[in-house]
Amino acid sequence: MSPFRASAAITEKWEHFRFEVSDGVATVTLDRPDKLNALTFESYADLRDLVAELPQRGDVKVLVLAGEGRGFCSGGDVEEIIGELQKMKAAELLEFTRMTGSVVEALRTVPIPVIASINGVAAGAGSVLALASDFRLLSRSASFRFLFTHVGLSGADMGSAYLLPRIVGAGRATQMLMLGDKVTAEEALAAGLASSVVEPDELPEATRALARRLADGPALAYGTTKALIQRELDMNLSGAIEMDAMTQALLMLSHDHGEFYTAWSEGRKPDWQGR
Amino acid sequence: MSPFRASAAITEKWEHFRFEVSDGVATVTLDRPDKLNALTFESYADLRDLVAELPQRGDVKVLVLAGEGRGFCSGGDVEEIIGELQKMKAAELLEFTRMTGSVVEALRTVPIPVIASINGVAAGAGSVLALASDFRLLSRSASFRFLFTHVGLSGADMGSAYLLPRIVGAGRATQMLMLGDKVTAEEALAAGLASSVVEPDELPEATRALARRLADGPALAYGTTKALIQRELDMNLSGAIEMDAMTQALLMLSHDHGEFYTAWSEGRKPDWQGR
Amino acid sequence: MSPFRASAAITEKWEHFRFEVSDGVATVTLDRPDKLNALTFESYADLRDLVAELPQRGDVKVLVLAGEGRGFCSGGDVEEIIGELQKMKAAELLEFTRMTGSVVEALRTVPIPVIASINGVAAGAGSVLALASDFRLLSRSASFRFLFTHVGLSGADMGSAYLLPRIVGAGRATQMLMLGDKVTAEEALAAGLASSVVEPDELPEATRALARRLADGPALAYGTTKALIQRELDMNLSGAIEMDAMTQALLMLSHDHGEFYTAWSEGRKPDWQGR
Repeated sequence: MSPFRASAAITEKWEHFRFEVSDGVATVTLDRPDKLNALTFESYADLRDLVAELPQRGDVKVLVLAGEGRGFCSGGDVEEIIGELQKMKAAELLEFTRMTGSVVEALRTVPIPVIASINGVAAGAGSVLALASDFRLLSRSASFRFLFTHVGLSGADMGSAYLLPRIVGAGRATQMLMLGDKVTAEEALAAGLASSVVEPDELPEATRALARRLADGPALAYGTTKALIQRELDMNLSGAIEMDAMTQALLMLSHDHGEFYTAWSEGRKPDWQGR
Repeated sequence: MSPFRASAAITEKWEHFRFEVSDGVATVTLDRPDKLNALTFESYADLRDLVAELPQRGDVKVLVLAGEGRGFCSGGDVEEIIGELQKMKAAELLEFTRMTGSVVEALRTVPIPVIASINGVAAGAGSVLALASDFRLLSRSASFRFLFTHVGLSGADMGSAYLLPRIVGAGRATQMLMLGDKVTAEEALAAGLASSVVEPDELPEATRALARRLADGPALAYGTTKALIQRELDMNLSGAIEMDAMTQALLMLSHDHGEFYTAWSEGRKPDWQGR
Repeated sequence: MSPFRASAAITEKWEHFRFEVSDGVATVTLDRPDKLNALTFESYADLRDLVAELPQRGDVKVLVLAGEGRGFCSGGDVEEIIGELQKMKAAELLEFTRMTGSVVEALRTVPIPVIASINGVAAGAGSVLALASDFRLLSRSASFRFLFTHVGLSGADMGSAYLLPRIVGAGRATQMLMLGDKVTAEEALAAGLASSVVEPDELPEATRALARRLADGPALAYGTTKALIQRELDMNLSGAIEMDAMTQALLMLSHDHGEFYTAWSEGRKPDWQGR
């Protein structure tokens, strides 16, 4: 547990998805396979709160997002979400859209690498959860669909119009977000949207291997890298260089960097401790 | 006509290019094929003013930019533009460069999707008109040439040094803008600069189909998507997520989103009205 | 010599790499081939100071960075840099990291095109020197390795987390910077990280040809293009368009633009003078 957690309890049970932590690897498995793991009000809220808690648990070095069954996440459920939203007015709607956006902001700012293990369709909000991840491992049969305009909504949702142009370029992002057509795994790979594409039956092992590598590596170095990649998207050159100078000087004083040097001097592998 | 147009008349005739509106699709056809549709002082001014008027006409849901003959647009004419500029001093030159830049700013900020239908060479200012569009449909025989340095000018012109790195990445943009070499349709596709590449004789139909799809679809959703993609290029993550929350809550109260839900409930296609 | 150099002398001899200027082309050759051209405290300092002086020498129109032997630059030497840093505290470390960052800031802001001629491995700080260049010409046997996390440091170093996402997109940049795996020349080309890839024995000639072209061309146009591509990464659309309007009006009053028009009128090639 982090020394910087006080009165607030760590949530014991997440009721709206499966959650497990094993040897540094936390896994959220969206688990409504009959609905292609559609999100609900409750699963959004739980995602927001879980990601906020993660760095304070002290036992998590990497987060995996996965889907049960043949899909990754089909986004907001038409009946359970769109139907309910139809009954709401401005303030409630804004509370909802702020909640969904806060899931993305949490994923982008938590100093822990996030792997989206995308076994099938990632549609609507499901595709934005993937964008908010650091790594997108795709099954060859997986696909993205930024479906928002198909339901009469803006393709800019939960930060998608900020994230996607910075991942695939503004031209491709315009096509994907405005038209909402299917983006295959191969297209995603060519555009830089997929980190890698593997055969469907190899996805669990590829996910496990990357998660293991990140959990076993220098966690402070990984977390800092993630934090600065995100922050420097919003900074100018000079500010980014000064931020790198500051943080790298800090990491030069870290246990892990010293451990690298000692291990190198002794001809052995470093024993990373993440501090 | 928009209710928010008052004393200013809608221009009846655009004299420096062909212009037609048909069933929601506005088409500007640059029409000086013997000059590869080179721009003139007057055609720049007309483009600036036309794009400003477009959203207030009330009859336009998508804008197509096209070129007559074998080229798309060869940029500023050497005799008619460069020759005249040689006679000018600072204030007049700045008035000219601000006019050309305002065409790009208008195209990027008008909340209407813009399709560049690129049949042949898009050179100099012609290539920047293409960059300022949302979709770039290319004939296989089309090409880009960012020719500015070849005439002793800066490759940064009309926003090209802002737009191109955000479309193809800063490395490729440096090559294209500094060297001004020909960029083929295939290279443009691989770099994310072309939305798609079709055979030359298929370009008119591909353009028509995309324009039709956009004109028949949920116009408010499309226009909002475009507006936010552009604005969020200039925003930080947190601001972009809040902007998405605000706009999406607004669109949840729109006719078209409600219509989607009703149509879905009734098992029929939505009747989009763009409001 | 620039008229805007006063008391400060131009450095006569750079002791920590080879340096030569020939007909407008300056070449820095990192020259510790037995160490794959690892950097030292002194070579960082010399790079910083050299790049600051370059535009005031008056004889340099393009800068080439090259490596002697089979590597380009392996980054900071483990013994000579990491070992020494282990003995330092916060203020000294920050002085070091600010120095390394200032090399990148100098390379990105000097209004002279920079070509990295990458013959072999570009690792750690060597890979960031490549990112800070305008053109990256790669031998087919060359590769990048953003090794920082492998030594327990942040992948954000010397501006890498600012530059790389803007060159290859945020997804690919996350993979490269967090994992530090080898990026081959072909992968770099596909991602927009390499400007071009040539056979190993063709690299010197390809470098010479590009340097010659840049040195013989309109230097003010090239330098302005570079300066604005970098600055407009940090500007919003409207500011970038106004900046282009201002700078292009200035260049319309330049010798070289007038010379283009005169040469064109007379049917001859322009005699570029860079002013």
